[in-house]
Amino acid sequence: MNSAELVKCDCFDFEEVGRDDNARAGVVTTAHGEIETPIFMPVGTLGTVKAMRPDQLRDEVEAQIILGNTYHLYLRPGLEVVELHGGLHEMMNWDRPILTDSGGYQVFSLEELRTIKEDGVEFQDHISGARHFFTPEKVIAIQETLGSDIMMVFDECPPADASREYMRNSMERTTRWAVRCLEARTRDDCALFGILQGGTSREMRREHADALFELPFDGFAIGGLSVGESSEAMYETVGFTTPMMPDDKPRYLMGVGKPQDLVECIYRGIDMFDCVIPTRNARNGQCFTSEGPVKIRNAPYAKDMGPLDPRCDCYTCSNFTRAYLRHLYKSREMLAGQLCTLHNLRYFQTLVRDARKAILDGRFLDFRRDFYAQRGQLQDGPSP
Amino acid sequence: MNSAELVKCDCFDFEEVGRDDNARAGVVTTAHGEIETPIFMPVGTLGTVKAMRPDQLRDEVEAQIILGNTYHLYLRPGLEVVELHGGLHEMMNWDRPILTDSGGYQVFSLEELRTIKEDGVEFQDHISGARHFFTPEKVIAIQETLGSDIMMVFDECPPADASREYMRNSMERTTRWAVRCLEARTRDDCALFGILQGGTSREMRREHADALFELPFDGFAIGGLSVGESSEAMYETVGFTTPMMPDDKPRYLMGVGKPQDLVECIYRGIDMFDCVIPTRNARNGQCFTSEGPVKIRNAPYAKDMGPLDPRCDCYTCSNFTRAYLRHLYKSREMLAGQLCTLHNLRYFQTLVRDARKAILDGRFLDFRRDFYAQRGQLQDGPSP
Repeated sequence: MNSAELVKCDCFDFEEVGRDDNARAGVVTTAHGEIETPIFMPVGTLGTVKAMRPDQLRDEVEAQIILGNTYHLYLRPGLEVVELHGGLHEMMNWDRPILTDSGGYQVFSLEELRTIKEDGVEFQDHISGARHFFTPEKVIAIQETLGSDIMMVFDECPPADASREYMRNSMERTTRWAVRCLEARTRDDCALFGILQGGTSREMRREHADALFELPFDGFAIGGLSVGESSEAMYETVGFTTPMMPDDKPRYLMGVGKPQDLVECIYRGIDMFDCVIPTRNARNGQCFTSEGPVKIRNAPYAKDMGPLDPRCDCYTCSNFTRAYLRHLYKSREMLAGQLCTLHNLRYFQTLVRDARKAILDGRFLDFRRDFYAQRGQLQDGPSP
Repeated sequence: MNSAELVKCDCFDFEEVGRDDNARAGVVTTAHGEIETPIFMPVGTLGTVKAMRPDQLRDEVEAQIILGNTYHLYLRPGLEVVELHGGLHEMMNWDRPILTDSGGYQVFSLEELRTIKEDGVEFQDHISGARHFFTPEKVIAIQETLGSDIMMVFDECPPADASREYMRNSMERTTRWAVRCLEARTRDDCALFGILQGGTSREMRREHADALFELPFDGFAIGGLSVGESSEAMYETVGFTTPMMPDDKPRYLMGVGKPQDLVECIYRGIDMFDCVIPTRNARNGQCFTSEGPVKIRNAPYAKDMGPLDPRCDCYTCSNFTRAYLRHLYKSREMLAGQLCTLHNLRYFQTLVRDARKAILDGRFLDFRRDFYAQRGQLQDGPSP
């Protein structure tokens, strides 16, 4: 690879603006504007964050960046339709940054339906069963067609129980594919992040770090976590991995997580998160609040005249009671999913915003202690 | 009945402010504000107009009044929960007028599960199968607990194919129940409408009119239509019924209808409409536009970069393409139902608003001709 010949994303930037122990606050600049980190990215798999209008996502959640799924959008509505709109932003009417995954995670999840080759992965999709072949080059081309502000490399996420030999082979291929992704870029307004694999093994993470972090990516993600390991194992892995990562690039923990996971991993130096939990759980009536989880369908809420979360400023908490939300949920009304999704996303956004303020004020440990105290948990959470 | 002793609704008023042939424009005043007629009332069966937030209903649809269903709200969440909120308005966060039906239509639709007696109707509900007994007095008490701005009498809607004898008996009982409803009122801020039955028979409508219209109701509804008869039969019935109705009270055609039905029945002197069509059809991807119906799931829209309705000013039409809406619908995304519901309700609201303007300007026939012309229909629609 000749670095001088690579297409680079000149509009992308990361600046660390504050630090408190390992927790850090930053600003990421993309072609569609700035993101204040730490940040949580709502997931918009199919070109919509489920149950949310984009204006509500911008004005009420105050989401700064959302995630789109390459594999799903490639199948539906397909690239031709996205291209006719001029890109994913235009199609879904979202003018802030979008990060797209590479589809790797979805393709490798197909298990019986895919074959891994050195060149790429052959698979049958989950909708029509049609055959496709994803290569690093193709995955970059798709993400450039989507117009992603932050593209992800095509990587393999090996199973948590993979043998050391399998994992090493997979990591090495992921590195070769990462180089091919860098070489495949044609747009200078789409940033590209590398993905570090290695499971929960410090040695494997170190090995992959040595190969990956010298490549000229705009940022780096930790992949291969939140795939079934314990919270403690995840926190421990993040804790020994972030110190291996470059300080001058954003650090993105893929597929994580619950509110506690965000607090603990911000504590360990993570800048960016994404997860379907706030949106998916909302549609199942599981809400996140400053006082802990609320399963809104439960009988004790039938006559509860309080708001979902007394500390929340969202439309849901400002205007409706838990009793009404429970009624909507029990009656299978769409509004239940709409209002709970809005709240959960606002809760996540408020959490990372408050974490950022605390970092900038040098009181992140107080913030973390308050987080647990509000839930009636006296302990400080797991140690780093 | 001693009229002098009846509780009256002093805050309720109707003023006719314009007329063009039989079509008329008016202002209805209720405890929760004014309604400009002709008006379409979105249906909020269970304390939510499905897929719509109340702020969107107010600010984007500009709905002036919505409908709630007594039978459904009585079962879920139940009166105790509504009462804890201080009424239906407060529970669902809607500060404009609400009209509630009496539950009669739902109770009589239960068929095998109900027994009609002179005193009321015994029935088993469709959820738990529990036994209930609805009387005119109970139905008024329920609607007063809901805090309805316009309550409806408990009436029987006989099947379309009922014998003349059955229908006459039913009509006479409906009149006796109407008197009992008037006598049962205790709140002076809840208006009460009577319901005219008589199917599609001019003679039966006349008979019921003679008994009903002398009672001191705040307005009158035409019931027993939109129950399976042809459009022509409905238009004809409305055409010969409205001249029997008092001029100084609002006229409400229950359960109607499609856009053409609204145009034709405004033409025949109707002031108020309600129907689940715009909301239910929206969730099935059936949209109403100025150019006629659009089934958004259909293949020709897959790459259609135009808005759902080029003449519409709603959020959906201002921001999204038909191709994107089709993608959302095909992907079973909730946002499809949200955006299509918003559009359909806005279309209905715009239709009645434009009809009202045309009446006030003395050009309702032009409006009606344009309505058909925009759909590529050259005829003027059915004759009155």
